[in-house]
Amino acid sequence: MPGSRRNDRPDSAPAVQEAFALTDDLLHSLRRALDDNSAARIEALLDGLHSADVADLIHQIGRERRKRLVENLKSHLDPEILSELDDGVRQAVVKQLGPAHIAAALAGLDTDDATEVLETLDQATQASVLTALDEDERTPIEEALAYPEDSAGRLMQRDLVAIPDFWTIGQTIDFLREATDLPDEFYEIIVVDPSHHPIGTLPLYRAMRMKRPIVIGDIMDADPHLIPVLMDQEEVAYVFEQYNVPSAAVIDNTGRLLGVIMVDDVVDIILEEAEEDIMRLGGISESNLYDSVFETTRQRFPWLLVNLATAVMASGVIAFFEATIEQIVALAVLMPIVASMGGNAGTQTLTITVRALATRDLTRANALRLLNKEFAVSIANGFIFAVITGVVAWVWFGSQDLGIVIFAAMVINIIVAGVAGMLIPLGLNRIGIDPALAATVFVTTITDVLGFSAFLGLAAWFLL
Amino acid sequence: MPGSRRNDRPDSAPAVQEAFALTDDLLHSLRRALDDNSAARIEALLDGLHSADVADLIHQIGRERRKRLVENLKSHLDPEILSELDDGVRQAVVKQLGPAHIAAALAGLDTDDATEVLETLDQATQASVLTALDEDERTPIEEALAYPEDSAGRLMQRDLVAIPDFWTIGQTIDFLREATDLPDEFYEIIVVDPSHHPIGTLPLYRAMRMKRPIVIGDIMDADPHLIPVLMDQEEVAYVFEQYNVPSAAVIDNTGRLLGVIMVDDVVDIILEEAEEDIMRLGGISESNLYDSVFETTRQRFPWLLVNLATAVMASGVIAFFEATIEQIVALAVLMPIVASMGGNAGTQTLTITVRALATRDLTRANALRLLNKEFAVSIANGFIFAVITGVVAWVWFGSQDLGIVIFAAMVINIIVAGVAGMLIPLGLNRIGIDPALAATVFVTTITDVLGFSAFLGLAAWFLL
Repeated sequence: MPGSRRNDRPDSAPAVQEAFALTDDLLHSLRRALDDNSAARIEALLDGLHSADVADLIHQIGRERRKRLVENLKSHLDPEILSELDDGVRQAVVKQLGPAHIAAALAGLDTDDATEVLETLDQATQASVLTALDEDERTPIEEALAYPEDSAGRLMQRDLVAIPDFWTIGQTIDFLREATDLPDEFYEIIVVDPSHHPIGTLPLYRAMRMKRPIVIGDIMDADPHLIPVLMDQEEVAYVFEQYNVPSAAVIDNTGRLLGVIMVDDVVDIILEEAEEDIMRLGGISESNLYDSVFETTRQRFPWLLVNLATAVMASGVIAFFEATIEQIVALAVLMPIVASMGGNAGTQTLTITVRALATRDLTRANALRLLNKEFAVSIANGFIFAVITGVVAWVWFGSQDLGIVIFAAMVINIIVAGVAGMLIPLGLNRIGIDPALAATVFVTTITDVLGFSAFLGLAAWFLL
Repeated sequence: MPGSRRNDRPDSAPAVQEAFALTDDLLHSLRRALDDNSAARIEALLDGLHSADVADLIHQIGRERRKRLVENLKSHLDPEILSELDDGVRQAVVKQLGPAHIAAALAGLDTDDATEVLETLDQATQASVLTALDEDERTPIEEALAYPEDSAGRLMQRDLVAIPDFWTIGQTIDFLREATDLPDEFYEIIVVDPSHHPIGTLPLYRAMRMKRPIVIGDIMDADPHLIPVLMDQEEVAYVFEQYNVPSAAVIDNTGRLLGVIMVDDVVDIILEEAEEDIMRLGGISESNLYDSVFETTRQRFPWLLVNLATAVMASGVIAFFEATIEQIVALAVLMPIVASMGGNAGTQTLTITVRALATRDLTRANALRLLNKEFAVSIANGFIFAVITGVVAWVWFGSQDLGIVIFAAMVINIIVAGVAGMLIPLGLNRIGIDPALAATVFVTTITDVLGFSAFLGLAAWFLL
């Protein structure tokens, strides 16, 4: 599969090759340079690459070459690379470089990025890196780490531009020209009252068009979108998605300005949250493409174990009807169809419900209406597929009664699947459990157990 | 479930209630106002709400009340609301308002938003709205619609700020103060050469800090991230995610500047693409929470039909071993366990692979290495769960031979599931089919058919 052959897919691949720095050619050249241990060639290949691209290369070259690459980067490591790495790989890189080196690198990062690097390290490494930092760099990071994981406090940066509303454009421009501790990037200026509560924002594109005597309070956007410092990152992402803001001020519980969250950090969160839902729906609690075989096996184990337990439970239902199956073997042939169709119908409703909860399209106010709709859809699809399956069974085994039994079992299972596919995630969400994490196993257990017992139970009753 | 009771979940719900405009209370008040048809109360409730929040309300109040609300908004419809609506609801609203009204609303939108509204309408409605537009508003929208769906050309806006590199900060500021056709929002100025090729960007936060005599070419970021106009929106999203840019210039195939894409539009694309993967993995081709029962049933039908076909195929395998099952009914009891565990292990690998392809973490260059890892993980989990299941079967049915047979079938099925879970999406991607759309059904078909035939085949061979 590897090779430098050009991609011949009919889609936009050629354009992509131009637009992205990372090509297969680059990767292969880097591998060769690492195998030859040629420091000059390695440096030439990485020269001018964006830190995110270097991080991707570090991910993609495999464990041994990665060590060699990090060794080569050691003396001139771009600190941004650290913040772009996946957790597992970052742990390994930090271990390799040692606390002193990492502390020096963290000093070159914004507080939020430094915090992101540190929060994924184990306690001991975290402590030794913190000790190696200067006090004025350590304090803001320790303050950020004191906020709960996944809260706005962890995401925000302390560096920001805040001015009073009575300033003029002229004063603002002079301040910006002279200030030495401005953030690396900012898209708007936060306007604060005398007690440092944000009362508005001034987008730079507006500030730039105004003449010097104009007063900030007259041209700012009042009523800014404010983020409480303890807000969960999922809610933060929602504010940015919903209101299309490029940045937002973070406040403490008295309304005082603490920091600012930028849209590029939120883009990462949006990806992370969607990713988490996808993985959890797919039966993976944590995903890390670059983790070791041992670690990956360990991560996938719990879900498979739960699935084994529920599969054994479903088998218990079948065992209960052993005598019936002994008399009509056709039941063993047909029973997986009932369970499988219920499982699929349930998964469809479940997927919709989990996402609608995540995107806040499903609220307590419209839950009943959407439940009615799912119920109606389940009845429709239940009847359609029950008829098809009933006819298939009738023709296949030449028994009209068998057709009727599987028809009835399918209707019951698909309707219950639809209702359970919605009620279970709603219920889990209500009691504070992530519906994506647990709903799949509940729903498929119900459709398996109910599918087998409805089909075999009805068969035992009518056919014997 | 509805009601104005306060949410008593232990998470961040109270903070959310403060931060978001949409509360259950507001929704209930609006419903009552609509039922009473009180125009004054409706207007008071919506006053000051962000267009995205109004769109959410329109989504959440149900078909009849929606009609009444749109009727009330008719005379003073904020055009932004149209661009925030879901496709299905938007169709209905457009039909209700009529082409003349919609055309008037579109005139108030940026080209990209107007295009987004128009592209989801059916051909006839689209044509009648276009006809109702003034020519100078129609032309840019028609140009945008001429680009392929989901391409950068549809996403970009034409309004932008471009200046030559030999200008000074002073000239730039004067230009910005006097220009009348600037975009609503912008975060950076695009620097172009005499033939209008982008050669750099100047972030506003840097421009604002510079003195008037400074020349743009000396302070711009050279080597900007450029987006070819035909690039797929998924690739566009990747550029923004990878390089954390707030906006990016779009160029034609000669490198000339055509437009600009803003990060807030990309946030929508990121959500849309992740959403699409989640839905397709969950067996739903298109998702629209607010579609009618009929439409929803129709959307879910194809996947259920495919699943029925594969379930019947698996039943065919079981039917082939009817004689064996007749003699050992325990096989019918245990066989769903083998299929189900294979299905779950396959889904885990499949989920990882589909996402890694979507996020470009899985490339041709590292596919072989990751495949090796999946193979190793499958062997590990395969053996672990085969041993557990073997022991369960042995103890349950008191037959060591039955335990050995299910052990062997499980090892085979879980290993094949892992390999298929990776190779099938890779293969589909290679031939240009979205792996999220089709991989699930292929993988589960394999694990069902192989699971049943390995278990029943081995049983027929060893136990009879």
